[in-house]
Amino acid sequence: MSPVALSRRVGGLQPSPIREILAAIDRPGMVSFAGGLPDPETFCDLDLGVIPRNFLQYGPTEGEMPLREQIASELCAIGLHCATDQILVLSGSQQGIDLVAKLFIDPGTPVLVESPTYLAALQVFCFFGASLVEIHPGERSPATGDAAHFAYVIPTFQNPTGHCYTLAERESFARACDEARTPVFEDDPYRDLAYDSCDRIPVSSLLRRSSWVYQGSFSKTLAPGLRLGFLAASRDLVEPLRRLKQAADLHSNRVSQWLVLRHLRDAGRPDRLATLQLCYREKRDAFGRLLEEHWSDIANWRVPAGGLFFWVQLKFLVDTRHLLPLALDRGIAFMPGEPFFADSSGPRGALRLNFSHTSKESAERGLRDLADLLRSSHAGNRPTE
Amino acid sequence: MSPVALSRRVGGLQPSPIREILAAIDRPGMVSFAGGLPDPETFCDLDLGVIPRNFLQYGPTEGEMPLREQIASELCAIGLHCATDQILVLSGSQQGIDLVAKLFIDPGTPVLVESPTYLAALQVFCFFGASLVEIHPGERSPATGDAAHFAYVIPTFQNPTGHCYTLAERESFARACDEARTPVFEDDPYRDLAYDSCDRIPVSSLLRRSSWVYQGSFSKTLAPGLRLGFLAASRDLVEPLRRLKQAADLHSNRVSQWLVLRHLRDAGRPDRLATLQLCYREKRDAFGRLLEEHWSDIANWRVPAGGLFFWVQLKFLVDTRHLLPLALDRGIAFMPGEPFFADSSGPRGALRLNFSHTSKESAERGLRDLADLLRSSHAGNRPTE
Repeated sequence: MSPVALSRRVGGLQPSPIREILAAIDRPGMVSFAGGLPDPETFCDLDLGVIPRNFLQYGPTEGEMPLREQIASELCAIGLHCATDQILVLSGSQQGIDLVAKLFIDPGTPVLVESPTYLAALQVFCFFGASLVEIHPGERSPATGDAAHFAYVIPTFQNPTGHCYTLAERESFARACDEARTPVFEDDPYRDLAYDSCDRIPVSSLLRRSSWVYQGSFSKTLAPGLRLGFLAASRDLVEPLRRLKQAADLHSNRVSQWLVLRHLRDAGRPDRLATLQLCYREKRDAFGRLLEEHWSDIANWRVPAGGLFFWVQLKFLVDTRHLLPLALDRGIAFMPGEPFFADSSGPRGALRLNFSHTSKESAERGLRDLADLLRSSHAGNRPTE
Repeated sequence: MSPVALSRRVGGLQPSPIREILAAIDRPGMVSFAGGLPDPETFCDLDLGVIPRNFLQYGPTEGEMPLREQIASELCAIGLHCATDQILVLSGSQQGIDLVAKLFIDPGTPVLVESPTYLAALQVFCFFGASLVEIHPGERSPATGDAAHFAYVIPTFQNPTGHCYTLAERESFARACDEARTPVFEDDPYRDLAYDSCDRIPVSSLLRRSSWVYQGSFSKTLAPGLRLGFLAASRDLVEPLRRLKQAADLHSNRVSQWLVLRHLRDAGRPDRLATLQLCYREKRDAFGRLLEEHWSDIANWRVPAGGLFFWVQLKFLVDTRHLLPLALDRGIAFMPGEPFFADSSGPRGALRLNFSHTSKESAERGLRDLADLLRSSHAGNRPTE
């Protein structure tokens, strides 16, 4: 390690399991169920020829006004009533996690998180010193009795579980947060990747008293390489978040903002989205059939109504991190389940499988071989339940 | 303020003086000497043909490999010997300031900064709790005797003063940092905006023992709206910085990375840069002549050998922040000098004037009227020296 004096918070900065895997999936022939990579076939077009040259100058920290207006209008349409000045354009929704962590977290600050939840959010919260408190939506009133400074939730097609809160769960969660005055940080990158009918009203829109931050992403429906997302926030939080954004990168890429605005206004957008949903629904269904065929004896899962992942619970308790090197040797990448938990020290016997990025043929080969590996490596392990 | 519990560090988060001014300069007819806005005439072209569609997918945290190779090769050519794996592409060099602050600063961490220096760096360092220690390059051995965890410097065409360290100053500073084992954070966004001959070798390249981070920007020579910069770092700091980058925004915009790489490799680049330097040299000279004509009786300044600013020291001690509203009323924006100092509480009698963005006609009107305002408002103030 460096002989220089680094900040205390850097001491807890672990390499991301995602990264080590992404390094491996560049190998030829690798079947990757690991990342949350969209299918490149779904990406938007890029036509840069006609971008107004004034977009090359420095721009406003909060984002381009027409883009913010468009976002506010779309949020109102899904039930989250907010004004344009409550919108902040982000350099991808990962930036929103960094900003919200900076906004709320001191060393020891209690933060409510789902169990399991998005691992890169856990990393950032821990980096800033959060004391994580796990919540299990639907199992207990999540926010009551806790002095958490905010609750981080992914109510729609949760990462990694794929769970979509029912309307009752949304209302119950919002009520509990209102009662405890717990601010809500709602992460909603997958809402447009809906394959079955389900309630998707933002939890933030159901709050009556608590402060809130709601964020979305253009990575899943337009293209990740554009690195563009947005947040909307209750009025008390907008201005400090804007200042944090300014300190972080002045403002987001304006070329991307222009491209995204064009796509949001494009008359063909509903058709594009329908095609994207169709593509992913078919992939999900094919993936589910392959799981039925190859995994029924070793695992349980629920078919996700949306999003990009199957969360698979093995029938034996194993630390899936130990299986990863063996799988990579066989040309298969997956995401171990353990890092998605606030306490990642012990085995969880679960893994996250992405279905959006592999071809049907690769998925078949990968799921069959991975099941064989699981069976042979852990035939003697004790059951999880 | 919000009834919710925000982090302690947010309490010190002041609105940027830049922002309040940028809000005002949109008014019709405003002459702005305030921001560091490049002349849009100098911006690069955007129409570079068809971006490969794989650039729309998620990409590597550290940036595109060919772009990193190009940057490493260019740094070697200016004397900073580093390998491709020491390069991290940034979402603008403001992001580098955020990452380096996260890397080093705990509450109370001593940080060396020039006096005056870039105000947005001061803001970020203070936000993370730094205890700022001012250094005056050339006046004393800057790093010896201080237990600073790093020193932040802009040796080439410094912001706001325009000062360019001599070779002797560079060597002396590097030696002092080596002796105290103080890591150096060298910010170098203006190096290509050179109008007179001067030493520009990176201080980082002169270090023998200390760790270092060197960062550059494409905002001044290509276009700010692309929001792209880079850093190079000593080997002990590369990996923690990469992890911090990953937690901040996963990776930088790939469309911008593709555009920048094309421009760096473009055969017409030397001509483009020469034209840009010629444009700014003429603007600087014309601006200098206007200052001679209208400001000689009220201020002193040095003609900067590069960069985007004149740093003007008034002959009377006034808090220039109090003059700003009066100037804005007359349709003139400038940057008060006080926020560029670690201790911004008292009057400094200095202001920063940008010469790159105004037309010659606007500059003439603005400088004449601003000088009149200064004379009439502060005829009775005591001299600064």
